[in-house]
Amino acid sequence: MKVIKFGGSSLANGTQLKKVLGIVQDDPERRIVVVSAPGKRFSEDTKVTDQLIQLATLVKNKASYKEVYEDIFSRYADIAAELELDGKILEEIESHFDKLLNTRFRTPELLEDAFKASGEDNNARLIAAYFRQSGIPARYLNPREAGIFVTSQPGNARILPESYNFLRHLHDTEEVLVIPGFFGYNENDEIITFSRGGSDITGAIVANGVQATLYENFTDVDAIYVANPNHVDEPQKIHHLTYTEMRELSYAGFSVFHDEALLPAFHAGIPVHVKNTNNPNGKGTKITRTRPKTANIISGIASSSGFVSIHISKYLLNREIGFIRKSAQIFEDLGLNLEHMPSGIDEITFILRKDQLTPGKQAALLYRLKNELRADDVHVEGDVCLVMIVGEGMVASVGTTAQATQALADAGVNLVMINQGASEISMMFGIVEKDEEKAVRAIYDSFYPK
Amino acid sequence: MKVIKFGGSSLANGTQLKKVLGIVQDDPERRIVVVSAPGKRFSEDTKVTDQLIQLATLVKNKASYKEVYEDIFSRYADIAAELELDGKILEEIESHFDKLLNTRFRTPELLEDAFKASGEDNNARLIAAYFRQSGIPARYLNPREAGIFVTSQPGNARILPESYNFLRHLHDTEEVLVIPGFFGYNENDEIITFSRGGSDITGAIVANGVQATLYENFTDVDAIYVANPNHVDEPQKIHHLTYTEMRELSYAGFSVFHDEALLPAFHAGIPVHVKNTNNPNGKGTKITRTRPKTANIISGIASSSGFVSIHISKYLLNREIGFIRKSAQIFEDLGLNLEHMPSGIDEITFILRKDQLTPGKQAALLYRLKNELRADDVHVEGDVCLVMIVGEGMVASVGTTAQATQALADAGVNLVMINQGASEISMMFGIVEKDEEKAVRAIYDSFYPK
Repeated sequence: MKVIKFGGSSLANGTQLKKVLGIVQDDPERRIVVVSAPGKRFSEDTKVTDQLIQLATLVKNKASYKEVYEDIFSRYADIAAELELDGKILEEIESHFDKLLNTRFRTPELLEDAFKASGEDNNARLIAAYFRQSGIPARYLNPREAGIFVTSQPGNARILPESYNFLRHLHDTEEVLVIPGFFGYNENDEIITFSRGGSDITGAIVANGVQATLYENFTDVDAIYVANPNHVDEPQKIHHLTYTEMRELSYAGFSVFHDEALLPAFHAGIPVHVKNTNNPNGKGTKITRTRPKTANIISGIASSSGFVSIHISKYLLNREIGFIRKSAQIFEDLGLNLEHMPSGIDEITFILRKDQLTPGKQAALLYRLKNELRADDVHVEGDVCLVMIVGEGMVASVGTTAQATQALADAGVNLVMINQGASEISMMFGIVEKDEEKAVRAIYDSFYPK
Repeated sequence: MKVIKFGGSSLANGTQLKKVLGIVQDDPERRIVVVSAPGKRFSEDTKVTDQLIQLATLVKNKASYKEVYEDIFSRYADIAAELELDGKILEEIESHFDKLLNTRFRTPELLEDAFKASGEDNNARLIAAYFRQSGIPARYLNPREAGIFVTSQPGNARILPESYNFLRHLHDTEEVLVIPGFFGYNENDEIITFSRGGSDITGAIVANGVQATLYENFTDVDAIYVANPNHVDEPQKIHHLTYTEMRELSYAGFSVFHDEALLPAFHAGIPVHVKNTNNPNGKGTKITRTRPKTANIISGIASSSGFVSIHISKYLLNREIGFIRKSAQIFEDLGLNLEHMPSGIDEITFILRKDQLTPGKQAALLYRLKNELRADDVHVEGDVCLVMIVGEGMVASVGTTAQATQALADAGVNLVMINQGASEISMMFGIVEKDEEKAVRAIYDSFYPK
């Protein structure tokens, strides 16, 4: 049996839901459907999740929320009208909202999580009703009933390992189960959401728990591309990736999936298939533990801006046992997460995400590094972009570094950093942010010549 | 005034000492001469320092040392005979040895240091006598009298900062002062030696203290070479290096100088000139704070075997604040000094010198890394060689990485690691040890084509 997940744009209106119905009907193995909240219908549209965040803010501030609430409700009402659903489903959604608006939450964060989660929850109820009306034996399944239990970090839930056992019994379902993505329940029976993009996580968790033969992830692109189409014109599609390739690509800002979204499926060795709701017969992108070799040395190029580098120099630094531990301790004390640390002889550079570094933290950091480490010099360089090239083919190809750096050199892109050696199938280049597009395009053109 | 230092092979016999005399006579600015112990006269010869270590071991073990002692003494006697010095100097050396052999040392390490230091000390006495006999107003100057005071780490002395002030008064010497290199005195008036190659350190310290206009370092090569002549046939000479270039090159095993030997001169901004005693009018290699630009992108290539890499993988490692600090703490607890840490997303590699890692420490390290970090996998790869390319010209040349990695790829050398980003004027490649010569030659041939 297959777990199938639909993203927000696949569920934005009745027209899209008809496609979804067709896809589910098309394969009797598709028996668990994980759904997002309704997404954008057109590019300037607002996602229901964003409207719900707005609603939560108004409610928290005891401000008037009627207009926003009606906007949200109308999204479901429009879909119900387009699909000619009977009135019961809208009553159900309305009563769900009534309950939500009258609940007292322990903390504002829990309130926000419950409001956000309602986007998926109501959509799952509506979709189950639509499936039933269309003759599919379908049922809405609440994550509590499914067995999705999580830690109590609002907006950043982690799955509790016992959930996988609870989910196992769904494997033999005769009905089509429609499960809302994005959230689970903590030990107090409170709703806690995963990080943004969390419906992908729910899908991967369910696929793992029920030991699905396939996790199909329907989105609005035909495939994952070798490079970001914003940087490269009509990049080639990737038809097959390994788990590790996908993982490394999503780290550096590959937009299709969040960093960790697919990990639960990867851990269970479940194949993932990314497909387009609007073109369900396209090849899509398969993601599996291994894949057949291709002629391509690199599978994908990802880039991510928003890093900062902190450069420390001190004579004989590399002779000082404990220097790295002491430096790392200072970052840790300030709650700063280090990403990379290229090191020379008398120098070390720390690379971290810029958004962590408030002006106050930066001042404290520089002061402590300079004084506690007795450094000769400490300075910050902002606006660093990391470009990552990933490919199982790199292991066997000694020339990859040469080819990539030559492409960057020819394009006049200066390297702030190279980090290679921890992973055999990826290589990371640090450049200045303004060179991002130029760098991605140069590498793409070199490895994927026209 | 200039400080001039002669290495062991420049002082190995009377013939060499005549050249040294000529060099000192040639320039009245050469007023402080720092000397090593007599070195090898021919390639299978034994250095006096090595004989003294043997002597110290015999004395410590209360074994018969007469034969070794006589061998050592004969080295001085041969030189005295060749130079027709009067008998007094040999009496002085003999009485110095008598005193040494009858001293009770607090620890075996102090005994060994005092014995080793006598090689330089007696040689300085002999050379001063030879200079005087040749009409130069010269005087042996003991490091205590000069003001060279050091920490109490036998075999690894560190200069005490006040020494520089004590040395200052030697600036105006009218005589030629002959100072033995390699050792100083601790606060208990005990002899403590610097690390091996320590006469270079003494010379640099004295040059700093007296604010010399130049520190001339006479050795037995015409210049520093772009690459190790053991790896590359007839490599080009480097005529001018910056302090930073020299520093980075000596780190990775450039044989002419020890890592830190020249730092005291660099800190005071004193130019260093490396010359050949056997060809004193050759251009040699100048080392200064800055240097004129040349057409060469890289100035030198150094390589050093004897590293090991420890690879740790753990899902979401880069999300874990404190992971690096915790890892570094484990290395520190075991007294292990980390050199480099290339990092991926779910992986980090620690590179350190192999000689630190006894089998017991390695077992403890792997156990703790695996268990305390809850790593998915920890494994060791031995036999890593670091190759370093260094050059002030690299800053402005974006193509250097491409050129170097292309050269390595063409030679079939696989990269274990690239570390670039902490220093602007160097780049470090990790390769497997067996590829060392191939790698150095490939890079040399690419940047210095015939």
